[in-house]
Amino acid sequence: MIGFEHISKISRTSPSKIVLLIIDGVGGLPDPKTGKTELESARKPNLDRIAQDSLCGLIDPVSPGITPGSAPGHLAIFGYDPVKYNIGRGVLEALGIDLELKPDDIAARGNFCTVDDKGIITHRRAGRISTDKNTLLCRLLNKITIDGAEISVLPVKEHRFVLILRGEALSPELADSDPQQLGLAPKKIEALSPQAQRTAIIVNEFVSQAGSILQEETRANMVLLRGFSRRPDIPSMPEIYKLKPAAIATYPMYRGLARLVGMQVLPGGESITEQMNSLRRHYADYDFFFVHFKSTDARGEDGDFQAKVQAIEELDNALPSLLSLDPDVLVITGDHSTPATLAMHSWHPVPFMLKSKWCRPDNVTEFSERACLDGGMGRFPATETMSLAMANALKLDKFGA
Amino acid sequence: MIGFEHISKISRTSPSKIVLLIIDGVGGLPDPKTGKTELESARKPNLDRIAQDSLCGLIDPVSPGITPGSAPGHLAIFGYDPVKYNIGRGVLEALGIDLELKPDDIAARGNFCTVDDKGIITHRRAGRISTDKNTLLCRLLNKITIDGAEISVLPVKEHRFVLILRGEALSPELADSDPQQLGLAPKKIEALSPQAQRTAIIVNEFVSQAGSILQEETRANMVLLRGFSRRPDIPSMPEIYKLKPAAIATYPMYRGLARLVGMQVLPGGESITEQMNSLRRHYADYDFFFVHFKSTDARGEDGDFQAKVQAIEELDNALPSLLSLDPDVLVITGDHSTPATLAMHSWHPVPFMLKSKWCRPDNVTEFSERACLDGGMGRFPATETMSLAMANALKLDKFGA
Repeated sequence: MIGFEHISKISRTSPSKIVLLIIDGVGGLPDPKTGKTELESARKPNLDRIAQDSLCGLIDPVSPGITPGSAPGHLAIFGYDPVKYNIGRGVLEALGIDLELKPDDIAARGNFCTVDDKGIITHRRAGRISTDKNTLLCRLLNKITIDGAEISVLPVKEHRFVLILRGEALSPELADSDPQQLGLAPKKIEALSPQAQRTAIIVNEFVSQAGSILQEETRANMVLLRGFSRRPDIPSMPEIYKLKPAAIATYPMYRGLARLVGMQVLPGGESITEQMNSLRRHYADYDFFFVHFKSTDARGEDGDFQAKVQAIEELDNALPSLLSLDPDVLVITGDHSTPATLAMHSWHPVPFMLKSKWCRPDNVTEFSERACLDGGMGRFPATETMSLAMANALKLDKFGA
Repeated sequence: MIGFEHISKISRTSPSKIVLLIIDGVGGLPDPKTGKTELESARKPNLDRIAQDSLCGLIDPVSPGITPGSAPGHLAIFGYDPVKYNIGRGVLEALGIDLELKPDDIAARGNFCTVDDKGIITHRRAGRISTDKNTLLCRLLNKITIDGAEISVLPVKEHRFVLILRGEALSPELADSDPQQLGLAPKKIEALSPQAQRTAIIVNEFVSQAGSILQEETRANMVLLRGFSRRPDIPSMPEIYKLKPAAIATYPMYRGLARLVGMQVLPGGESITEQMNSLRRHYADYDFFFVHFKSTDARGEDGDFQAKVQAIEELDNALPSLLSLDPDVLVITGDHSTPATLAMHSWHPVPFMLKSKWCRPDNVTEFSERACLDGGMGRFPATETMSLAMANALKLDKFGA
């Protein structure tokens, strides 16, 4: 694939508009009873009609056989090599609570846990305390002050929190304290490089003070930390593609990912109808829109085949509102598959279609895993989505003389 | 893809012959009135008969979404990574006038332009002076002598010329003097690296002397320079493939590209019939032939759908002469698409077919964009063309033990 340094030289701003609709986890597997996947089972006249006019195919988010997390699945579609730009667990947790990280901030994922009087872990999730309790405890931990770093502790959900360290010359090259099993004490945080030694001392001091503050708690009397990471130094979509991009997503993590790559986050509301209304309201102000539909993935992870089918139908119902805007380029795909039969993200390639005045349509007449196999794009890396979309929007100049 | 260092180890010379026919810009898009592309509209019994016996597919010259210039489109088919071996504008301009560049020569594309009495550009193309006038002016500029570089100024066409600097320790790392807009003075040439500083001084001295020589001219009273470049250090096809390759092309730029990769340039004539005659005459003397057919691209760029269809039919008519030679391997493809509806080079993949005794034919019975989708090669990078052709000519040994 051609690199960003080349794309940024041939990309140009123009009035044409690109809409990228990501149906989270849309790819599936056949229901053994019917032999049909979720997409093949759904009544989805709009998706199928778009497929007739589109260039179709199947994307591999990372590479064949690799099941992507949500971050690599999305970053690949935005054009970023998902292996090179791997987002740490701590940063992802911070993105998930709409936290804006500065380039040098160190983020770690934290768990409240239970230790016995010898300091041995007896429950890694502190019996899943309530989010309210978590919020109270984080308030206490926020009082910790240590020389050399400003410390923030932010509640996520149940037993989960985010630790942020801000300061000069800190390093995320730290091992986890979480031993990931019971019957052991939390590990002392170790520096993985000489320049991380000072940060290790700071974090160990934080853990020590946290243990003192929490010692009277019956369940959440200790903390575990993992996934120390820093925001990757990632070129922004406006830099690479000269786009003015906006995101409409109901879940904070996707808003965070969008912000990370330089998108403006627009109000999304709770339903796909509200998302489409937001798209209409802001349509004049941007030239690229990422619309994220979540419930296909959620129902797939629940293992509820029928509910995932309904989620697809709900999305299909909302499409006329999008189609009436007549975007110059419309891309519809997913960040990965989430077959209800597996009840988890999977490695299966994801149906893809791109509709534009300048796409070369193929013979595909249905938006599904099997039908897209015959598409004009065949099977291809998700990272090529953006250059295809840009080309079809006539936003890329010729490469080479 | 396997690299040249490996290919060169397993390639071997043999009497078998490969003919590579590049139909420039052959890929297209459907005519909205008929829903058929140029290839689908043309009567082309020979191309379709070849497709029946061939391994078919679609090539991506650079990568999906990227529209190649002529140089990357051809280099990719010859097996060269078109991003790694990017040819500068100056070198391409020199190739286009059949100029043989030495490895260290610096080439720049030049324009005669008009400046007012304050030195501000009022016409970037000097009112498109005649080629004869250009030739006269180049003769004057060729008298310029500067210590440290031998200077040649060669006319191209209308206002365009090529500047060649030959000398020791010169560098092409120079910014353009052409500001690409009116109302500004030509920029002083700036060195983009410390080792280019001496070359910048030489070029600025050339510009200054050129201005003096041209000062009495009413239109062409100044020069603009851009695309300083050196011939890429490119391994030759005889080195990589152990071939004795020849090129038959009517346009100088394609002859120049062929020479750059180590092909012998044969007389081409003006028509495809003359090109085929040249092929017949020299058939015994080489084992690889690149035949370049230009008018499909020219008519596509004109936006003349019907004329492009006719160009395809004209080519098809000339094929029996080629087929009667019965080459061991015949590859027919294009360097990029040039849809008449877009009237420019485009990013769409290009139909490809390879006929040989040893190819594994597929079910494709027609040479067109849609039909080739079902081909045995599917969609693949153009850079894999040469190893496929070599294999089918039984000119590649086994890789590995």
